[in-house]
Amino acid sequence: MNVGQWLTRVRKESPLVHNMTNVVVTNFVANGLLAIGASPVMAYAKEEVADMVRLARALVLNIGTLNETDVEAMLIAGKAANEANIPVVFDPVGAGATAYRTETARRILNEVNISILRGNASEIASVAGEQVRTKGVDAGDVQGDLMHVAKKVARMFQGVVVVTGKNDIVTDGEHVTIVSNGDAMLTKVTGTGCLLSAVLGAFASVGENIVESSVAALAYYGIAAEKAAKQTQAPGSFQLAFLNALYETSAEEVDEYAHIRGE
Amino acid sequence: MNVGQWLTRVRKESPLVHNMTNVVVTNFVANGLLAIGASPVMAYAKEEVADMVRLARALVLNIGTLNETDVEAMLIAGKAANEANIPVVFDPVGAGATAYRTETARRILNEVNISILRGNASEIASVAGEQVRTKGVDAGDVQGDLMHVAKKVARMFQGVVVVTGKNDIVTDGEHVTIVSNGDAMLTKVTGTGCLLSAVLGAFASVGENIVESSVAALAYYGIAAEKAAKQTQAPGSFQLAFLNALYETSAEEVDEYAHIRGE
Amino acid sequence: MNVGQWLTRVRKESPLVHNMTNVVVTNFVANGLLAIGASPVMAYAKEEVADMVRLARALVLNIGTLNETDVEAMLIAGKAANEANIPVVFDPVGAGATAYRTETARRILNEVNISILRGNASEIASVAGEQVRTKGVDAGDVQGDLMHVAKKVARMFQGVVVVTGKNDIVTDGEHVTIVSNGDAMLTKVTGTGCLLSAVLGAFASVGENIVESSVAALAYYGIAAEKAAKQTQAPGSFQLAFLNALYETSAEEVDEYAHIRGE
Repeated sequence: MNVGQWLTRVRKESPLVHNMTNVVVTNFVANGLLAIGASPVMAYAKEEVADMVRLARALVLNIGTLNETDVEAMLIAGKAANEANIPVVFDPVGAGATAYRTETARRILNEVNISILRGNASEIASVAGEQVRTKGVDAGDVQGDLMHVAKKVARMFQGVVVVTGKNDIVTDGEHVTIVSNGDAMLTKVTGTGCLLSAVLGAFASVGENIVESSVAALAYYGIAAEKAAKQTQAPGSFQLAFLNALYETSAEEVDEYAHIRGE
Repeated sequence: MNVGQWLTRVRKESPLVHNMTNVVVTNFVANGLLAIGASPVMAYAKEEVADMVRLARALVLNIGTLNETDVEAMLIAGKAANEANIPVVFDPVGAGATAYRTETARRILNEVNISILRGNASEIASVAGEQVRTKGVDAGDVQGDLMHVAKKVARMFQGVVVVTGKNDIVTDGEHVTIVSNGDAMLTKVTGTGCLLSAVLGAFASVGENIVESSVAALAYYGIAAEKAAKQTQAPGSFQLAFLNALYETSAEEVDEYAHIRGE
Repeated sequence: MNVGQWLTRVRKESPLVHNMTNVVVTNFVANGLLAIGASPVMAYAKEEVADMVRLARALVLNIGTLNETDVEAMLIAGKAANEANIPVVFDPVGAGATAYRTETARRILNEVNISILRGNASEIASVAGEQVRTKGVDAGDVQGDLMHVAKKVARMFQGVVVVTGKNDIVTDGEHVTIVSNGDAMLTKVTGTGCLLSAVLGAFASVGENIVESSVAALAYYGIAAEKAAKQTQAPGSFQLAFLNALYETSAEEVDEYAHIRGE
């Protein structure tokens, strides 16, 4: 798989990505999308989201600070994206933490055709109504039951599931690919998961194969984090270095440093 | 025109600027206003915006992530600002992209006396119901039709229009001034247009001549960007360097490096 | 008082802090809480705030960009926090500036048992319905009437009052402690007060003595600011250096550099 070419396409085509994300990370997501070469737009009002979706090449839904008004607009936007045949990424932030989040996540998955569902292990498991032991997920030991759950969820909603952690899992319900780039400093900056969901949307918008675009996005994102972490281990500096690295990392570096394996 | 003196006044008087801006850029706008020496306040509730406006010296309205509740409050705040005789800056973010934005922009312009309307070429043209070719606007070639539209819009609402791009246009409907400071790195950071609208408000609040205050604000803002771009061409670092440059740029530097010409 | 041990506990226990804060500072507060070693969560919907509070170890309420919907949810969350017996920090941003803020601040204080009320002199005085001369509060001259008002407010709501300024006042209504760490650069970055309120919540969550945890939090926060200010006097750089300093400052440094005295 030539993963670097996906980055080249994003930078060349600069796809407009419509984000309906949480109030904590809007600025970081917008700056991150600019840094990778995409064009961000944020719009939340039910009066306009369908119109905005029709201008965009991907839609990203994120329930990190959900409320009824925004969820209603997300459903309108999601259906418009389905009609327009553009990919929809869904980030079920905090699913499992409160009943409201878990139920809203399931409602969105029921009413909108989701192309990519991205979350951590417990969020993905909550969507499936499963328990997952999330301890012990390290480079040499991706848990079998987590892969099983990811595949099950992917089959449930007929899309691609991305479970992020020390190793990232990508599955369409049949095959599983593991991406092992990244750095623990990503956990010291808020919104790195939310931005990743938006980057997955940008990559998915410039080609047909969503498994491949997702693997490419994860490798690129993780490599940028590795570069930034070599420069600094302090969180304020890391956030800045990471945005710089997203901007500066080349397609060739992605091809050279990607750690990808099939399972 | 002694443009640097406007910056000196802002730093001396530290005017309170009331912002009703979008959720993507609130933090950046607040930090940017602090960096120039002004005092930011954000308040959105219809229960209080009129009271807050009466404490402020300028009001900045921005529809980047508009919704009905906020638009209603913007109209209340705008009318209170008109009664209090303080300048109102309006940034019609995304006008032309969706019908809801275009109609809301026109509604605000109809119901509130706007002192400064700032947008890019397509936003300003949308407000006027015009088409503008936005390609080819570079340093040597400011399009005649764009100036024509800007003047027309300024006459329509009897205020000052600021069209930003590679060259910035300031017009009161009769005379046109072109400011050619700035750097393309500004397009790599989200909210630099929104912050500029707030800076235009701060500058307008410390004097009587809104064309002159706007020209001064644009030159200063662009010079700070030029300084930051000399330090870095990476977007994370640029955002930081730009805030620093807003803080550190002197009135003398503004006078020395301003590129201003009448048309 | 061994103040550094409080920081050690926060880093060891990584308490989940539920924030209902304003839209200007959400990102900065989340990143700041991560930098001190705590776990931030933001949730605003009335459908879920009580559930989220029950997972958290502290609740932080901030009315910086209040609206009726959020205030209603804050009251629900506050009461759930009282039932769950976790500390509630209240930051009455802008109390005194508009009637709506002053009344809302009093309403929250009436309906929720607040553990820590943090504000600047005029905010705290407004809550009490008092006037305070806020000029002249410097290192050698903490105003007697400000301490008097702080004690009065603490007795009114039977909690701990923290008044921040050049010198910080902590009082339970009887005793007063003054913390004199910090740097004026904190006033050049938006949200440093809001983040401090969240840090007070994190510290209060890992022990029983809220006066002591607050004094420790103030000393630590101020020392981190002093370290950052030694590195830079520019506001963009300071924000980054301050987040780094929060992450890097050791418990031993807190013990060594804390400036604390009883009154």
